[in-house]
Amino acid sequence: MDRRSFIKRAGIAGVGATAAGLAAPAVAQGNITWRMVTTWPKNFPGLGVGAQRLGDRITAASGGRLTVQVYSAGELVPPLQSLDAVIDGTAEMSHGAAYYWQNKSPALSFFTGVPYGMTTPELTAWMRYLGGQELWDEVYDQFGVQGFLSGNTGTQAGGWFKNELKSVEDLKGVRFRTPGLGGRVWEKLGATVTNMAAGEIFQALQSGTLDAAEFVGPYNDLALGFHQVAKNYYMPSFVESGLATELVVDKAKYQALPEDLQAIVKDVCQAEYDQVAADFYANDPRALRTLVNEHGVTVRAFPEDIMEAGAKASQEVIEELRNSDDPMVKKVTESFIEGLSLVRERTEMVDLPYQVSRQKYLKY
Amino acid sequence: MDRRSFIKRAGIAGVGATAAGLAAPAVAQGNITWRMVTTWPKNFPGLGVGAQRLGDRITAASGGRLTVQVYSAGELVPPLQSLDAVIDGTAEMSHGAAYYWQNKSPALSFFTGVPYGMTTPELTAWMRYLGGQELWDEVYDQFGVQGFLSGNTGTQAGGWFKNELKSVEDLKGVRFRTPGLGGRVWEKLGATVTNMAAGEIFQALQSGTLDAAEFVGPYNDLALGFHQVAKNYYMPSFVESGLATELVVDKAKYQALPEDLQAIVKDVCQAEYDQVAADFYANDPRALRTLVNEHGVTVRAFPEDIMEAGAKASQEVIEELRNSDDPMVKKVTESFIEGLSLVRERTEMVDLPYQVSRQKYLKY
Repeated sequence: MDRRSFIKRAGIAGVGATAAGLAAPAVAQGNITWRMVTTWPKNFPGLGVGAQRLGDRITAASGGRLTVQVYSAGELVPPLQSLDAVIDGTAEMSHGAAYYWQNKSPALSFFTGVPYGMTTPELTAWMRYLGGQELWDEVYDQFGVQGFLSGNTGTQAGGWFKNELKSVEDLKGVRFRTPGLGGRVWEKLGATVTNMAAGEIFQALQSGTLDAAEFVGPYNDLALGFHQVAKNYYMPSFVESGLATELVVDKAKYQALPEDLQAIVKDVCQAEYDQVAADFYANDPRALRTLVNEHGVTVRAFPEDIMEAGAKASQEVIEELRNSDDPMVKKVTESFIEGLSLVRERTEMVDLPYQVSRQKYLKY
Repeated sequence: MDRRSFIKRAGIAGVGATAAGLAAPAVAQGNITWRMVTTWPKNFPGLGVGAQRLGDRITAASGGRLTVQVYSAGELVPPLQSLDAVIDGTAEMSHGAAYYWQNKSPALSFFTGVPYGMTTPELTAWMRYLGGQELWDEVYDQFGVQGFLSGNTGTQAGGWFKNELKSVEDLKGVRFRTPGLGGRVWEKLGATVTNMAAGEIFQALQSGTLDAAEFVGPYNDLALGFHQVAKNYYMPSFVESGLATELVVDKAKYQALPEDLQAIVKDVCQAEYDQVAADFYANDPRALRTLVNEHGVTVRAFPEDIMEAGAKASQEVIEELRNSDDPMVKKVTESFIEGLSLVRERTEMVDLPYQVSRQKYLKY
């Protein structure tokens, strides 16, 4: 410990004690320690690594006054009990994805990403300037927690298929692993959809229980070895056009923190929204080069009729949410549609035609 | 002042005094106060507002231990002397764009954006995972400063033209306002390029000194009133595919800060990279609706031969930098080209085809 940090630690002892008196579960050396449970395996590329880094950045920016202890999936609670762990006080923070908690409210899907939905920059625009965050707060207020965007994978890959697809007809009965609302879209296209945890997919593909599977994208998929049992890698996904992660905190404990620590948690989460996206943008194409050049993977685009039928099915799924009996779900869906209608105008008038021209004309 | 913040302020007096003894120019109530000069007018949408917000967020996250006093363009120094103000100690921070300082090193253009260059997510991938930041640090070390990305406008608009463009032939002799490397590209296309400050453009268009001008995009351009004198709004820009802003700090003073304050400066800048982009993504299309629906503006795409000739001219400009006698410029150019070649693979295989399909098939 150098002299400056010694002075700092000594100096803020009073704050730690005050905050601890209000809310903090653990105090060591005058600092508050918060437990962060996550839905990701330890060192999982992009996401598990991101959760650990997020915790470390809060610890660093607060000079240890708010020290975050990160627990990977299963270390403290099973991954899909992470949100409940915050609600019941087992942990103060959870790092995961809001759509894992659809059973609590179907509205939560929108804060992660829905089929044929928003891209990384579109989602942050809706959340921060078009009412998304306020609606998310309303949903999570029911559970006494506060959510912050904490990362985004960008548009994901469409999936690994043992057989080449020529048209939407080829999807009939295909046993495909994909979760959530995306799964419902694929069911509408004729696939037989199952969900299973990351660690089970490879074996199911190998044994023939699955004909196809999607997970995230090259950066994660390479590590899981799917290329050993399926060689057709379809891109892009049309059901996961940008998957945002979340940091969830106990709201009462968060609000009891000194204002500077509240700001640090918020700022670091937003910095991580960029950092995680940068990680995927840099490392997905690196991993894809490995898959193609060293493992004989063929990258394919879905046939046009699948992309078209996928859009129709996605709209049906969104319309079901818009027609929900739950007024909160209805309200979030309508805000999302209005936001998407606005932001896609910029994407389609500016971003997209630029990228099309660059693809055609720039030789680098 | 509430009780917690009183304890906090009292508690950190020792740190303030220590840091002040090392480097800080001003100490008030035990806190360090840093002056941030900016290249933007006060309340300038997206960018001036962003600079002020960035300063406020550092102040808030540090609990006032590092209080940032923001000066808009001209308040303390003229806008284009902002970097020099940090170098000579007039200010501790500058908020602007690295390509304003091309005269110090042509390599600096790459950290803002170059013609037919990277998009917002591509640039952060290069900077954070593919060596960009390290090269930027090398360039700025020569001047004793440290740069951080602090925002991005996203892909900009192409410009306002009094007359419709049918082909690249129509650019011959067109008097066009556009700065920097983009200006060199437009000169190669036949335009007569001049640069002038934001506040002078409207009058020059009105008086006939200019036939056309580009500035940023709808959000900024609406405020400047160009639509009153030119009705053809071309999109997208192919010379400003993503313009990043920077926060520059005096490196010795930065390194003398306690480590938690160093982390806060870095984290807030990265959070602002996302925040500014979100602001543009939400507010550009809102402003564009106003321009089209209320002011009779026609949005047009540049003719295909202009987009193609623009790519060729952009590559010539980049090649000139690659062939520079300055080894630093050469090295940065090569890293940029290598990074772009990698990240565009993801953009073109995943992001772009998703957006194309959504444009075609999603009805919202």
